[in-house]
Amino acid sequence: MSSTTALPQHYVELSSLCRDIASLTAIGSLIGWDQETYMPPAGAEGRSDQQALLSGITHERKTSKRFGELLAACEADASLMRPGTIEAANIRELRRDYDLSTKLPTSLVSELAKTTSQAQEAWKHARSTNNFPAFAPHLTEVLRLTRQKAECYGIPSFDGPAGPKSRKGELYDALLNEYEPDISAADIQQIFTPLQSRLSAFVAQITGSPIKLSAACAELGATTDQQQALALDVIKAIGFDLQAGRLDKTAHPFCSGIGPGDTRLTTRYTSRSFLEPLSSTLHEAGHGLYDQGLPKTEHFGLPSSDAVSLGIHESQSRMWENFVGRSREFCAYLVPLAKKHFGAAAANLTAEELFKASNTIRRSFIRVESDEATYNLHIMLRFEIERELISGQMEVADLPGEWNNRFKALLGLDVPDNAQGCLQDVHWSFGLIGYFPTYTLGNLYAAQIWETINAKIPDLHARIAQGDFAPLLTFLRENIHHHGRRYSATELCQRITGKPLSADPLMRYLEGKLKPLYQI
Amino acid sequence: MSSTTALPQHYVELSSLCRDIASLTAIGSLIGWDQETYMPPAGAEGRSDQQALLSGITHERKTSKRFGELLAACEADASLMRPGTIEAANIRELRRDYDLSTKLPTSLVSELAKTTSQAQEAWKHARSTNNFPAFAPHLTEVLRLTRQKAECYGIPSFDGPAGPKSRKGELYDALLNEYEPDISAADIQQIFTPLQSRLSAFVAQITGSPIKLSAACAELGATTDQQQALALDVIKAIGFDLQAGRLDKTAHPFCSGIGPGDTRLTTRYTSRSFLEPLSSTLHEAGHGLYDQGLPKTEHFGLPSSDAVSLGIHESQSRMWENFVGRSREFCAYLVPLAKKHFGAAAANLTAEELFKASNTIRRSFIRVESDEATYNLHIMLRFEIERELISGQMEVADLPGEWNNRFKALLGLDVPDNAQGCLQDVHWSFGLIGYFPTYTLGNLYAAQIWETINAKIPDLHARIAQGDFAPLLTFLRENIHHHGRRYSATELCQRITGKPLSADPLMRYLEGKLKPLYQI
Repeated sequence: MSSTTALPQHYVELSSLCRDIASLTAIGSLIGWDQETYMPPAGAEGRSDQQALLSGITHERKTSKRFGELLAACEADASLMRPGTIEAANIRELRRDYDLSTKLPTSLVSELAKTTSQAQEAWKHARSTNNFPAFAPHLTEVLRLTRQKAECYGIPSFDGPAGPKSRKGELYDALLNEYEPDISAADIQQIFTPLQSRLSAFVAQITGSPIKLSAACAELGATTDQQQALALDVIKAIGFDLQAGRLDKTAHPFCSGIGPGDTRLTTRYTSRSFLEPLSSTLHEAGHGLYDQGLPKTEHFGLPSSDAVSLGIHESQSRMWENFVGRSREFCAYLVPLAKKHFGAAAANLTAEELFKASNTIRRSFIRVESDEATYNLHIMLRFEIERELISGQMEVADLPGEWNNRFKALLGLDVPDNAQGCLQDVHWSFGLIGYFPTYTLGNLYAAQIWETINAKIPDLHARIAQGDFAPLLTFLRENIHHHGRRYSATELCQRITGKPLSADPLMRYLEGKLKPLYQI
Repeated sequence: MSSTTALPQHYVELSSLCRDIASLTAIGSLIGWDQETYMPPAGAEGRSDQQALLSGITHERKTSKRFGELLAACEADASLMRPGTIEAANIRELRRDYDLSTKLPTSLVSELAKTTSQAQEAWKHARSTNNFPAFAPHLTEVLRLTRQKAECYGIPSFDGPAGPKSRKGELYDALLNEYEPDISAADIQQIFTPLQSRLSAFVAQITGSPIKLSAACAELGATTDQQQALALDVIKAIGFDLQAGRLDKTAHPFCSGIGPGDTRLTTRYTSRSFLEPLSSTLHEAGHGLYDQGLPKTEHFGLPSSDAVSLGIHESQSRMWENFVGRSREFCAYLVPLAKKHFGAAAANLTAEELFKASNTIRRSFIRVESDEATYNLHIMLRFEIERELISGQMEVADLPGEWNNRFKALLGLDVPDNAQGCLQDVHWSFGLIGYFPTYTLGNLYAAQIWETINAKIPDLHARIAQGDFAPLLTFLRENIHHHGRRYSATELCQRITGKPLSADPLMRYLEGKLKPLYQI
């Protein structure tokens, strides 16, 4: 990395604009966090004015003429564009962000904001009354505007056998690339197709097994305070820095990377089982560890201090939630902690019971209630459908029928109603199209990186059983977190694992763990 | 009030700029509140960047050319300037704010920011080491810049016998008027002089009384949670809307009016006595009730939804803290609540004991530890001294000696060291000069309005004993809160009480309550 003093003025000024934009974004994140945690209900209307104003100011700066000029000056400066330098990577990524921000006309942005805001209300009502036709016209309109948005972005090209950017993508790729740059729907399809058939068959095998696992051992009636104390112990143990972060309660768990030294997790507790809230806390803490590991001190505001993509972010949350959190060794680590915090209620808890409870596989209609094995089937269904909706292959009117038929084929269940079918997720009403596949990409990246980590740290599992998570976190810090957006997700995967992304590691991982448990 | 639709375009656009400025200010308040409550320690540096950026953006808008043009257009529009209308009052107050914001050159603002930031650090160190000479050069520099600031503002003129603005003020008035518009140091002196001699003599009488009251009955060892539950019951009872506000814990109690529907109080608890934290909560809730009563829904961002002055704001906090909270009837209301929340520890508590505990008068060196009777002596000392420091009558080097001599004359005590004398307050290091007198003005306004309220609501005290605070709050809402900045503090006092501000009501109130208690 070049020393800052030697950097040309246009790069220094551009970095300073970026830092201000990041500070504004941090403020937006904080007031959003406050809205979900501590804001009194009557503050909602004022808060929405504050958010709108701040978004406007932030957008103005992101798309300013000066930003564009400085960026162009940097691109024209050979001293900055030397391949392999952080500066060159930052300029490349800033160009990507600037183009995304400037390509949409203001009229489309506000039309989308208005339409999706109405669609969210319509969706809430349609889901609660199981009334798809009431939502259909809203979804049609969201899709129409989203296609327009994709056209404004332009269909991206990808590297191919004929050279860099030699492969033309499809309209859906323009949307996908907002969340997961440098990967095409066709690339994803190539990994998803074998995953889908193998996973579907594997789930059928599990379902057919006479072994039925139970999660009843986690139903200890632990109070919210007890669970919060346990959760704090666990996130501290895995390395989440509470001097630079918090854990609060909200209706829906999330992680918000506010700014340097300030990463906030939220979770929700149920008195029923302590495992589900703990998994969700581990998930958010996985996002949080990534956020805390980004080099925000030196590079705040620059892409080199940002996360690579939603898929890589999700790989971190899933790794801690599933690969660590649902392992036999983690359960062994957890038992004494549960006894410490839950007292007599946990007196008879065993690691093996907890391990089984953490790995009960059950087909269900609802994505967010599904388990490690079936989850990806839910995602692949959505990916297929939204891709066809964007290309025009599928009509909105046919969505419920198509959903139900494909769900039956994938999971062998008859969807009883649209509320438990195609109306269950909020995403499409928000205009989040191209977002779903990043969840499964996250699982795939996690599995492939996990295999490499296991090869490099032979005693990883023994360490986990002892509550020593440092070797794992150190690996993630050095190989992923510290790089920011220097490498794309594809490059990062290749650098760490030596191979392009494939379905094999995830299938090996699931089969290796679940076959013995279900005796299949 | 004119209906919004009929208002001219320049007024509508100006109102919209004001609303945006107020939303930005709200965001600044929120991130400031977060810094004191929930921000993780490592977030401090990023937060200070965020605050600086936001202040800059807010200041730019407050001082923009467009703002000035619209304001001038409004002033030139006779349809808006009809005396007695809300619009005319808003335009008058916006002119005042705009002039205050635009009169200081940027270089002076940043020099002041830098100097006071260093002075605060120096003050902390000087106080903890009792080293006045180490602070003296910093104070000298703060005073030099503050005089420059006052000169930029310009010496204000006041209404006098010879007509409006016929009385020329002094340099100190320019500073005072930032916090307390339309009152001069000479006006204040005229009220303070009799107050000072009467109060000083009265305190000597109390001190000479053989009766010594004790606050020991409040030392019940109540936990933080018990005290917080009691505090919430009390603030709800007096009318603080928790759907539009919160109560959190901080190192130093404060009230922050974030924005419409969002008023946040903070307090701190000690396990020693529950009375001191409760008084402080009542004080902040008094500010909070004012904030919640301002017409922010219709007028947000305009002066008609803002507080009149620091003195009037303080009159509201002091009214609830002292006039209500230290009354015999409030103590009667409090006893069953204390029993409810503190259980057996409060079994023997009586209203009379609590009343005495709430009214123990003791001379002390420290302003923030002083009581209702001695407090104003501390303030008057500071007012005198800072006025002389600004006029040049007093030199910084003479400050400790002058402080100690005058303190002895006022309170009859020998100040043991400067840490307990002229180094005790943070205000001057912040450049807050002209601020102190607003505390005593608050007490004086509260006393004078309290007398009127008692005359208009004959059963006020009986209602308070029953926990019925609605008649009092309704009076404050209708006569103070709802008007925003429509009337100046002086006008408001005249409108409510029929008289100009005087020392008599406060003396009558203190003597009426304390003479029987101390049998003097």
